[in-house]
Amino acid sequence: MIRSIHKDNPLRHVLDNGLVVIVQENRVIPAISISGLVKAGGMYDSDEQAGCADFVAQMLTRGTKNRTWQQIAEEAEAVGASIGVGCGTETVRFSARSLSKDFGLTLDILSDVLRNPIFPHEEIQKHRNHKLSLFKSWDDNPGQVGEKELRASIYPSSHPYHRRLQGYEETISKFGRYNLLNFHRRYYRPDTTILAVVGDINPKEAIDKITELFGDWKNEARPPADFVIPPAEMQEPSRKIVSMMDKSQVEIFLGHKGISRTAPDFYAVDVKNRILGGSAGLGRLFNYVRDVQGLAYGVWSSFSAGLGEGPFIAKAGVNPKNVERAIKSILNEISRLRDDGITEQELADAKEMLIGNFALSMETSSGIANVLLNAEIYELGLDYPEKHGRIYRAITKEQVEQAAKKYLHPEKCSLVIAGPYAEQEGVEIWLRAVTS
Amino acid sequence: MIRSIHKDNPLRHVLDNGLVVIVQENRVIPAISISGLVKAGGMYDSDEQAGCADFVAQMLTRGTKNRTWQQIAEEAEAVGASIGVGCGTETVRFSARSLSKDFGLTLDILSDVLRNPIFPHEEIQKHRNHKLSLFKSWDDNPGQVGEKELRASIYPSSHPYHRRLQGYEETISKFGRYNLLNFHRRYYRPDTTILAVVGDINPKEAIDKITELFGDWKNEARPPADFVIPPAEMQEPSRKIVSMMDKSQVEIFLGHKGISRTAPDFYAVDVKNRILGGSAGLGRLFNYVRDVQGLAYGVWSSFSAGLGEGPFIAKAGVNPKNVERAIKSILNEISRLRDDGITEQELADAKEMLIGNFALSMETSSGIANVLLNAEIYELGLDYPEKHGRIYRAITKEQVEQAAKKYLHPEKCSLVIAGPYAEQEGVEIWLRAVTS
Repeated sequence: MIRSIHKDNPLRHVLDNGLVVIVQENRVIPAISISGLVKAGGMYDSDEQAGCADFVAQMLTRGTKNRTWQQIAEEAEAVGASIGVGCGTETVRFSARSLSKDFGLTLDILSDVLRNPIFPHEEIQKHRNHKLSLFKSWDDNPGQVGEKELRASIYPSSHPYHRRLQGYEETISKFGRYNLLNFHRRYYRPDTTILAVVGDINPKEAIDKITELFGDWKNEARPPADFVIPPAEMQEPSRKIVSMMDKSQVEIFLGHKGISRTAPDFYAVDVKNRILGGSAGLGRLFNYVRDVQGLAYGVWSSFSAGLGEGPFIAKAGVNPKNVERAIKSILNEISRLRDDGITEQELADAKEMLIGNFALSMETSSGIANVLLNAEIYELGLDYPEKHGRIYRAITKEQVEQAAKKYLHPEKCSLVIAGPYAEQEGVEIWLRAVTS
Repeated sequence: MIRSIHKDNPLRHVLDNGLVVIVQENRVIPAISISGLVKAGGMYDSDEQAGCADFVAQMLTRGTKNRTWQQIAEEAEAVGASIGVGCGTETVRFSARSLSKDFGLTLDILSDVLRNPIFPHEEIQKHRNHKLSLFKSWDDNPGQVGEKELRASIYPSSHPYHRRLQGYEETISKFGRYNLLNFHRRYYRPDTTILAVVGDINPKEAIDKITELFGDWKNEARPPADFVIPPAEMQEPSRKIVSMMDKSQVEIFLGHKGISRTAPDFYAVDVKNRILGGSAGLGRLFNYVRDVQGLAYGVWSSFSAGLGEGPFIAKAGVNPKNVERAIKSILNEISRLRDDGITEQELADAKEMLIGNFALSMETSSGIANVLLNAEIYELGLDYPEKHGRIYRAITKEQVEQAAKKYLHPEKCSLVIAGPYAEQEGVEIWLRAVTS
């Protein structure tokens, strides 16, 4: 799919300390994109320190042994470079992008923030206040409340996916500089770090520069024992109503345990989910629940497939008077897909869309870098960009229908309703009736 | 800056009906981006029908003479194409992106939604309900409230920038299908439409296809008389407090009338504003107000320079106990920039950043298409991508300092405070003291 401008296949190189580097030359514009990850996401938090991983990630750019936060910001901004850091459940992902001439400086800043953050007291306090204020506004937001409650319903409290990534007021109020330093020392390690570099650079030069800046990074003793994600048990379905009577729209969340990205039938599940919960025109939820029945403003579903079995979630924002009908309608579409299968046309449309979107996502260097990063961590092979179309084209109607039977469990869906919807007599009985 | 992959300069062609086409070949990936605009933005609304332009734009994809909304969505989604429409004060902008093989289909849908929308009754009702629900949630959002109130303070009620683009409950409740059709017939015209096409296509082929699909589009009689934006008078500063005591953060808005994109000193103003209100590391507001003094979670400023003189706005989200200090601090930075000038280092950093960001924005076909579209409507010349660096590099410290003196008026700033901040005795006296 990709034209000859991408001259060679990506080059993969592992430094002595275990850090994996992947480089793809791409001379379209004189710029270079770096995408990377380290296995230091929210799942490594203890219950008492929920939110620590996210806090650490957000604080990386707030001061290092060599630079104040002002210097980090100024040095990057002055050359139009940008460095972004985001924390997920499993990994912390970072990205940087600059003109080619500033690659050395950008990589130097990136190496500094990953390896040498010092978590200044004052910045911790500022960030904590910001987070506490954010939590308050989330508590006032039916969408945020619903997602938090559903996640807690789908995974047992012993599972790392149970918690909210950002933590809670009780937990983030407690931890301080020592805890952040400790988390960083333990989980930021070269042997769980991957860097993908795509752009206007000779691959060997890029690897030399990375070796220079990351080669002497040491792993602290042995890898922590908690690097493995425990399997998730399917939970008994639960129902929860969070009444927020001053809001105008009710958010409905339904879901259960999903699938991991490395499961062999991931691709069939992906196609299935586009048919179920994809955007306008393709997704059945959108077409039937939103518009044919005029119930919801927005409705869709997702399978968050990571290293572990992430959640399957269907959600809708609806007018308060349509709550019951919308829940029934969503569950009905899930059952119908599982029991009655799909059409050849839906299969063809979903595949075409997935293949087209993937091709379009490879337009930019950062898009390519992200694909290569995922190919590495999920062990898809560095030829994944070439294979992608073949894999999806080969999926059959039967595979998708089997995946629907195997992975859609309307009777196991937990339900959360958040918004202007009262706890009232009869609701509980009704809920039991529709969700089981 | 752009490499040889962009083989030739863009080709500009005007159809007999006045529609302007600009095409740039770009063979990086087998995809094509279309960006376009039509002069049919919110400024053409009457007071009684505020929000009509935005409503029309949002309804374009909800059904045409040839396609139901479902068909529009299905035909586009099935090939992974996407069509987006957004309404601004002056123009409605649209964009579409698809694999090259689907260019004909994508352009056909785009032509259909621009030329033949039918505004079905049922879809109008659905969209109206959605909008009314959105307005409710905006009324509950200090950021939205603050921006609406500031705009109303900066421009007199006779000026088209005074109104909220999306209208108000009173206005959108009133208009119906006839009004939408009427607005569409009047303002969607080939002679105010521009299409920029960038991607994997021969320019002549693109122009032929566009002529085939748009060539027989007729202009309704003469252009409407209201196509000119009246000059905006600088208003006397006003102060307004919207108390929303259940929120956790106070939003502060300060601003006054700004500058148009075609003003010769636009570039000096642009550099000046990066120094004042740009992001971390460069912007003085961010560096001094947010972090040195620890007052605000976010603070920045913007000059919205369009065909008319858009607003200059500085805004900050702050802890309720820091409101007074933050306002003083923001006004102080504005005064300091106007009175004391800038440093050579700030000038160099701002220029470098603007040039770098522009180069990075030209990585994608849609980025290039947007630049060409702006070059056409603001009469910058189709060689603007090449000139951009030269223009900014030539800007001197004196020009920026003159622009600051000419366009920053701290004593003319209107002020809006929205959030958990009480109207209390003494506040009004204090406000007068700091803002005049």
